[in-house]
Amino acid sequence: MKKIVNISLLTLGMVFISGQTKEDSIQFNKISTEILNNGKGYDELRELTKNIGHRLSGSEAYEKSVQWAAQKLRDAGADKVWLQDVMIPVWVRGKESLHIKTPNGNWKSLKMLSLGNSEGTGGKDVSGEIIMVKSLEEYDKLPAEKVKDKIVFFNYPFNQGNVQTFISYRESGAYRRTAASLTARKGGKFAIIRSLSSAFDDVPHTGNMRYEENISKIPAVTIGNTTADELETLLKNQKVTAKLNSNCGMKGEKLSHSVIGEITGKKDQNVIVVGGHLDSWDVGEGAHDDGSGIVQSIEVLRTFKKLGLQNNHTIRAVCFANEENGTKGGKQYGKTAKDNSEKHLFAIESDAGGFSPRGISLEMDDVKRKQIKSWGNLFLPYGVYNFEGKYSGSDIAPLHEMVVPTAELVPEPQRYFDIHHTAEDTFEKVNRRELLLGSTVITQLIYMIDKNW
Amino acid sequence: MKKIVNISLLTLGMVFISGQTKEDSIQFNKISTEILNNGKGYDELRELTKNIGHRLSGSEAYEKSVQWAAQKLRDAGADKVWLQDVMIPVWVRGKESLHIKTPNGNWKSLKMLSLGNSEGTGGKDVSGEIIMVKSLEEYDKLPAEKVKDKIVFFNYPFNQGNVQTFISYRESGAYRRTAASLTARKGGKFAIIRSLSSAFDDVPHTGNMRYEENISKIPAVTIGNTTADELETLLKNQKVTAKLNSNCGMKGEKLSHSVIGEITGKKDQNVIVVGGHLDSWDVGEGAHDDGSGIVQSIEVLRTFKKLGLQNNHTIRAVCFANEENGTKGGKQYGKTAKDNSEKHLFAIESDAGGFSPRGISLEMDDVKRKQIKSWGNLFLPYGVYNFEGKYSGSDIAPLHEMVVPTAELVPEPQRYFDIHHTAEDTFEKVNRRELLLGSTVITQLIYMIDKNW
Repeated sequence: MKKIVNISLLTLGMVFISGQTKEDSIQFNKISTEILNNGKGYDELRELTKNIGHRLSGSEAYEKSVQWAAQKLRDAGADKVWLQDVMIPVWVRGKESLHIKTPNGNWKSLKMLSLGNSEGTGGKDVSGEIIMVKSLEEYDKLPAEKVKDKIVFFNYPFNQGNVQTFISYRESGAYRRTAASLTARKGGKFAIIRSLSSAFDDVPHTGNMRYEENISKIPAVTIGNTTADELETLLKNQKVTAKLNSNCGMKGEKLSHSVIGEITGKKDQNVIVVGGHLDSWDVGEGAHDDGSGIVQSIEVLRTFKKLGLQNNHTIRAVCFANEENGTKGGKQYGKTAKDNSEKHLFAIESDAGGFSPRGISLEMDDVKRKQIKSWGNLFLPYGVYNFEGKYSGSDIAPLHEMVVPTAELVPEPQRYFDIHHTAEDTFEKVNRRELLLGSTVITQLIYMIDKNW
Repeated sequence: MKKIVNISLLTLGMVFISGQTKEDSIQFNKISTEILNNGKGYDELRELTKNIGHRLSGSEAYEKSVQWAAQKLRDAGADKVWLQDVMIPVWVRGKESLHIKTPNGNWKSLKMLSLGNSEGTGGKDVSGEIIMVKSLEEYDKLPAEKVKDKIVFFNYPFNQGNVQTFISYRESGAYRRTAASLTARKGGKFAIIRSLSSAFDDVPHTGNMRYEENISKIPAVTIGNTTADELETLLKNQKVTAKLNSNCGMKGEKLSHSVIGEITGKKDQNVIVVGGHLDSWDVGEGAHDDGSGIVQSIEVLRTFKKLGLQNNHTIRAVCFANEENGTKGGKQYGKTAKDNSEKHLFAIESDAGGFSPRGISLEMDDVKRKQIKSWGNLFLPYGVYNFEGKYSGSDIAPLHEMVVPTAELVPEPQRYFDIHHTAEDTFEKVNRRELLLGSTVITQLIYMIDKNW
């Protein structure tokens, strides 16, 4: 590919409209040039993922990442860094195995993962015949006697037809969250779900599940698409027995921490929050989910310091604890803010992958939404054009409930659910420039909000 | 990451405005759903890259890919498939090695690639002292006696600060194209350039170079960023001698082919072209560059057939020969179209990588440009918002010279120059959904043009 490129104001990263816009446009360009040339987020993500690795709530690795994040916030030039106490659930995977057998066959091991928060079998074999359903609707119609003592395979495929993968993820999400309790209600022994995966491979995707109250806590496990396809084919022709043995389970609670760093406001101490979550699932490296959001948040503070941007309000980077299986960090942050009567002006979360930014999702009143949208042309040279989303992330939901305007970075969504919550969510899947462009856009937005609110 | 998504008309892939727009929007959605669910481009790209691999003009592999592409066009349902004769240059890499030595050291081998079209040393060692320049401006100021019998190292770094990587690529491009002749003009022995690479790694990026007329054809080679950094450090402290031995060189011309398939117009035989280039460099697998453009073009024909879209005009997929080191396929296509007085309504090229689409670059008169832009809202649900580009691709430039309106797909650009023209441009770097979204957007645009022009 040879290429001649027309340089337009758009591609040069500058939009000149009014004098004010021109000044902002120049600042946007300074922020972008600084981060793309000198940003440390990519190197920090390498440290977090390769030196610490995955970091499930309650694990030693998570506690290491707390110390690491505090140091990185100090290195970034934060005026104040502290740990916020959070009581978190301790879920442990333990040993786990799933086997199947056809009438004429031997036991065959399947690649699998227990879903996060799932109880196990207490180290005993639990077996039964598998029945397959393609949808919740199909399952609802099954009489309890057909489910009793069986294993239910919820074989709902990720909808490839949606352009927006997050919609397909949401459609499939109900299966992951509810499969165990639905199965238990009709007397089944455990549930198997097809992974919430956009990839045509055999990688199982773990993720959060929850138990309904007063329903027996039976196990739920997940298998990758290839294994699910094979199981589906088998079940069309014959009876298949499954056997699960798992030591997974919830082991109480313990004290852990979110990590917070801030640069003090020159005018007041009203707070602008930028955050991601420091914990991850216990497979892979938690690189896109959500090491990316962590290093992007730290980059915001560093960039304000490095460029000498004089922030009117306090800008706070929050590395939330326990997003994946409890959101206790987000809840505690909201509670503390309320208890201390801290005034929060704005909060933005990055927790949808470290891919190139495409938009900013806005959860706020129409006046503020309109104001941010009016800055749209400033963001266009950075590939950000979509301000239509109305959701803003689970860790800052408690702030939103306190009527704080909240937002979320919206990155390119096509690759995310290939690797989300899997052993494949590694540093190598993150591109330096894409990651740093995300930091750039968040810094630019916070620059505008700090100046105008 | 847990996620609640607000469904808006935007995210659902539907935009309802007028009755006409509603009909188009429904067709857009049908095209997208068909391709994302059933598209064959990704599997075809696996075949092309894994069964055939890289396919430099003049190589046996290229001729295999010609047969392969013809078959795929027939499989897609083309009414007519043919090969178009093209005389192409035959450049052969041959054996090549580059060594350096400091005053107290031994010869050390450097990872390198000769630039495409570069002559070699005829199998002999050619050595001399290296002088380094950081820019063409710096080189211009060097008196010839300082360059005579030396090796010139053009150490111009890829500009990471640009958001648009294609601008940095263009800035660096002059070094790759002109280094050899510039060095020869002042009596140097050969040129080394820092690769045109956005990656922080040691992968050398080959690519096209050319010789000025009446200037000695000396070799030009390229080294990856890490090696270039190390060489730069060495040269700051001491003299370094380089030694090149290369059998690269141009070996005349030969007859080869572009591959063309079309579905006949129901109303007339005026032609709409969609194309990419079938050849690649002789490293890696030519996956993004430009296997992606090839399978996307074939997908357009298949989708029209599969959905029973009744095209008014003839839609022609062209797999151009020899884009990388001659663009002879594009030139021949243009010449034949002129000789046969074929009326071309429109041509679009995909040759900027198989990443998620972000825009369509339009090289045409203002009336047509305005019309296509007026369809912008239809494309928004597919992530396409940027119609500002004004360049349309090198293979269809001859058509543009004949006043045919031309365009190019503009994909996400951040990762492309990490792997462009390298051993790393492999199938594994292409994402299925991103590739198919590109096919989707091209098909949608051709649907609109076929209907309205």
